[in-house]
Amino acid sequence: MQKKLKDCDTVALDEGQNAVVILDQTLLPGRTELIALKTAQEIWDAIYLLKVRGAPAIGVAAALGIYVLARDISAEDFEAFYEKFCEYKEYLNSARPTAVNLSWALNRMDRAALQAGKEERLAVPQVKERLRREALCIRQEDVEVCRRIGENGLSLVKPGDGILTHCNAGRLATVQYGTATAPIYLGQERGYHFKVYADETRPLLQGARLTAYELQEAGVDVTLLCDNMSASLMAQGLVQAVFVGCDRVAANGDAANKIGTLMVALAAKRYGVPFYVCAPTSTIDFHTPTGKEIPIEMRPEDEVTQMWYRERMAPQGVKVYNPAFDVTDHELIAGIVTEYGVARAPYEENLRKLMEGHGR
Amino acid sequence: MQKKLKDCDTVALDEGQNAVVILDQTLLPGRTELIALKTAQEIWDAIYLLKVRGAPAIGVAAALGIYVLARDISAEDFEAFYEKFCEYKEYLNSARPTAVNLSWALNRMDRAALQAGKEERLAVPQVKERLRREALCIRQEDVEVCRRIGENGLSLVKPGDGILTHCNAGRLATVQYGTATAPIYLGQERGYHFKVYADETRPLLQGARLTAYELQEAGVDVTLLCDNMSASLMAQGLVQAVFVGCDRVAANGDAANKIGTLMVALAAKRYGVPFYVCAPTSTIDFHTPTGKEIPIEMRPEDEVTQMWYRERMAPQGVKVYNPAFDVTDHELIAGIVTEYGVARAPYEENLRKLMEGHGR
Repeated sequence: MQKKLKDCDTVALDEGQNAVVILDQTLLPGRTELIALKTAQEIWDAIYLLKVRGAPAIGVAAALGIYVLARDISAEDFEAFYEKFCEYKEYLNSARPTAVNLSWALNRMDRAALQAGKEERLAVPQVKERLRREALCIRQEDVEVCRRIGENGLSLVKPGDGILTHCNAGRLATVQYGTATAPIYLGQERGYHFKVYADETRPLLQGARLTAYELQEAGVDVTLLCDNMSASLMAQGLVQAVFVGCDRVAANGDAANKIGTLMVALAAKRYGVPFYVCAPTSTIDFHTPTGKEIPIEMRPEDEVTQMWYRERMAPQGVKVYNPAFDVTDHELIAGIVTEYGVARAPYEENLRKLMEGHGR
Repeated sequence: MQKKLKDCDTVALDEGQNAVVILDQTLLPGRTELIALKTAQEIWDAIYLLKVRGAPAIGVAAALGIYVLARDISAEDFEAFYEKFCEYKEYLNSARPTAVNLSWALNRMDRAALQAGKEERLAVPQVKERLRREALCIRQEDVEVCRRIGENGLSLVKPGDGILTHCNAGRLATVQYGTATAPIYLGQERGYHFKVYADETRPLLQGARLTAYELQEAGVDVTLLCDNMSASLMAQGLVQAVFVGCDRVAANGDAANKIGTLMVALAAKRYGVPFYVCAPTSTIDFHTPTGKEIPIEMRPEDEVTQMWYRERMAPQGVKVYNPAFDVTDHELIAGIVTEYGVARAPYEENLRKLMEGHGR
């Protein structure tokens, strides 16, 4: 069904048909279509094929998804139920390796299941109800977290500023507001008149297809550029801040995000533009000491050589390097914008303080 | 007519039909087609539309082109002939602003015309013959210049090295060998077994369509990547040298080249990879003091939003930033590889020495 973007949730629960309903992002901006995911395979595929993407949205889709799957488990005793639940959890967790939100959301659902079924010894139907509430809570928290990231990010810029972003850490990557776009949307509501520059983000063009699209739909002044143009823009003084999202922040502040983020950070460093990583605290992974330990997903070659094209744009049989992410060294990052505030270097210490201050 | 790449000249003179014959580079790698350019409009369009591209090849096409046009000028006295000649020269010179080779080649042809017609007072047919020889000489010199750039560049690398290049400064950008690819081709002849990495080079994908193609046809081990991936590659230690071409070198060593070159240079600086600009001395412009004074061509928006795509990949009406070039600061450049040797910083002084040493 063809709809308007503003009438579509990125990811939602449809209890009537027991499905996760997502906006299929591989069809944007040409078509706005909602699809219902009911089986484990459908949910896994939707995440792997980037029909739902963006670290926070992946987390929410996984939480809703494992609830939908759990609801259909026919086991009557908790042990049998939990065994099947863990199978689903492992399977969904294997869809993409880099974003920690996927395992973060699944682990939260796991703890909720154990709490209800093992510690409180509730019957399976009550465990399922607990999982429903936990999944919807994860979804609702995402809205609030993004809004707060927006407030904290907005404090770092001035009306009229040029803001550059890479990939899509927009509302299409979350439930609402986005992470990197949250300061932009809040600024838009308050008449800040930002000039936003969106990297197109090869190979899958999330910047062109998603960020430029959602910002334009919201009336934001947005200009599209190829990924190799951001240094040229910064050299002319047109960018006052960079906001990007992120898939995982290591304990030392190194941040994995969409491939190309590192090059934006290097350009920002060169031209004195502050480079901010917008990260819900669910993205911060103290178990990963540095960026070196973050697994980087390699994607299929035809994303580079063929996808989106009328005809093949590279010679047959050419080798391709196609990592989905890169790691930006913490020393290139001016601040990590979380829902609890903006962490500055030294990150290990200050990220911990920020989270401890909020009982995390 | 469909041909094999190795049987096609990038740009040549067909005296029989009085035309410049070029390999239409907008059709590669899917189709290998030669086209004949006979009118001023056809030559201008071929340069503007990048059917022939690459600073050296543009220079050669312009030299052959103005000869073809001059040959058809019917004036019998030199004044009238020269007036028309200058009209053509100005028109062709307006096709693209950044590469200095275009005006360099046209100015050489101009001087040849004046020398023959004004100083030596030759008749118009002899002036035309002089122009023919000058144009063919410019073409032939390009082969020799590129070969020497290859020898000089080869002295900077070792067998087995990883070499990254951006855009196409290959044989398709010249008559033979290329500039940035010349060390690669000479190394290939001598069993150096380089691992070459080719940036795809958005928006027009010269790296994917041309560089990956011509290197693969020549049996070189080449891997294609998106422009935003080169820092990721360098961070892993896979690149030992960067070779790029260039459209104009300012007196202080600042170098304008295809958009994105600056970002490669910033990444190379970060990871300690030497970044070399391969430049025939015809590309060095002592009349332009620094990169700031190099005019940067802005290209149409649909190159970014639409070209090559089955369907539009950006929202309708979105603004687009699409400069064709950027300028790499001389301090990011480890050396400028010319046909006379490798110039190192301070460039103003050392480029002049290099050229004076060869009577230029």
